[in-house]
Amino acid sequence: MPLNPNAAIEITAFSWVPQFAQGVVRDLRARWALEEAGLDYRVRLLGQPRPTEYLREQPFDQVPCFNDGKVRIFESGAIVQYIGETSEELLPRDSQGRFRAIQWTYAALNSVEPAILNLLQIDIFFRNEEWAKLRRPGAEDFVKLKLKRVSDWLGDKEWLEDRFTIGDLVMITVLRFLRHTDLVTGFPNLAAYLKRGEARPAFQRALADQLAVFAANQPQPEGAAA
Amino acid sequence: MPLNPNAAIEITAFSWVPQFAQGVVRDLRARWALEEAGLDYRVRLLGQPRPTEYLREQPFDQVPCFNDGKVRIFESGAIVQYIGETSEELLPRDSQGRFRAIQWTYAALNSVEPAILNLLQIDIFFRNEEWAKLRRPGAEDFVKLKLKRVSDWLGDKEWLEDRFTIGDLVMITVLRFLRHTDLVTGFPNLAAYLKRGEARPAFQRALADQLAVFAANQPQPEGAAA
Repeated sequence: MPLNPNAAIEITAFSWVPQFAQGVVRDLRARWALEEAGLDYRVRLLGQPRPTEYLREQPFDQVPCFNDGKVRIFESGAIVQYIGETSEELLPRDSQGRFRAIQWTYAALNSVEPAILNLLQIDIFFRNEEWAKLRRPGAEDFVKLKLKRVSDWLGDKEWLEDRFTIGDLVMITVLRFLRHTDLVTGFPNLAAYLKRGEARPAFQRALADQLAVFAANQPQPEGAAA
Repeated sequence: MPLNPNAAIEITAFSWVPQFAQGVVRDLRARWALEEAGLDYRVRLLGQPRPTEYLREQPFDQVPCFNDGKVRIFESGAIVQYIGETSEELLPRDSQGRFRAIQWTYAALNSVEPAILNLLQIDIFFRNEEWAKLRRPGAEDFVKLKLKRVSDWLGDKEWLEDRFTIGDLVMITVLRFLRHTDLVTGFPNLAAYLKRGEARPAFQRALADQLAVFAANQPQPEGAAA
């Protein structure tokens, strides 16, 4: 069991987030990679509001941070890549295989995620704003174009390259940000790819462990406390 | 001189782009990294419309692609990291220094660039749209928050960590997407940081070489041909 309170590796995570974010907070990427690599880790939970000094660890006030006593970093892409360097299961050792995987990690985070998070923000945070109503069709079209690009590349392959890598791990967590829509379903090979990633036992454990934290820290309805 | 038609390293670039994009197209990142590393390279230019088969090299129809005969990749972040692995000038060799640099590369591309490109798109592509007018103040505030986060981290340091790395190289190219605004000027340490990066001779050569291509391929005004 990778979750281990005495592990050398520590990641940060939120103690609770609203429903829409449960199961997609970025510590999921680190948890999933650690599960795939079979590395024990412990979690340092952050409540709300975060302590101001957290900005000295993570300047953007996000999770996860990673610390194994040797390397202390933030940014889920960098963390997943660092974990990948310890495990050939996640990152091939030959230069071409290695950098194809790293390339897809960057592609997921820079060429796909921004369009998807833009739509998610419109649908969750700004849905009652006039601009969001006017903008949504164009923002959705842009997401569809990005999905088409990934779908066309994927074709009938199982993974983005010839085996599962950190590139797939990150891409699958990016596609999960669309779970409030049926956009991925419009690309059957992409929907199957997403399902294939989510079916991995390491993903299932990572997801269950993230959700367990939120269940344990569910705020009481007002008035329920005494 | 890194630009060399017989070089083993090839990158792709656009033969021409409109004024607003000249000097910020992403092949600049690869050119700059190659200049810092002192590696010769040649450029394969792509006209408009791009040939459909280019999508098999670059699924998102962007530049640059990189090919040195051993590794063939796309995504400027991955390319800059690959070049960094050949040159300690760009990427420290110790684990902590190396991954702090990689972390900032991801941070520039995932935690900062999306907010900035969102504003750039509002100002360039959508400026006459009603939603863009309504959205702009909020989009600008979000950019300011991101700039504040980077500025607070930077403090009075010269670079994001204790020396220049690929993380600074990419962050500086991200900040350049705001050159149509005075937002960076609002953070004097960030403005000085940007200036410090742009003053590097390797940056100056990379920029001049990108701009020279566009000058050489400037479309003739209609009617001037024939």
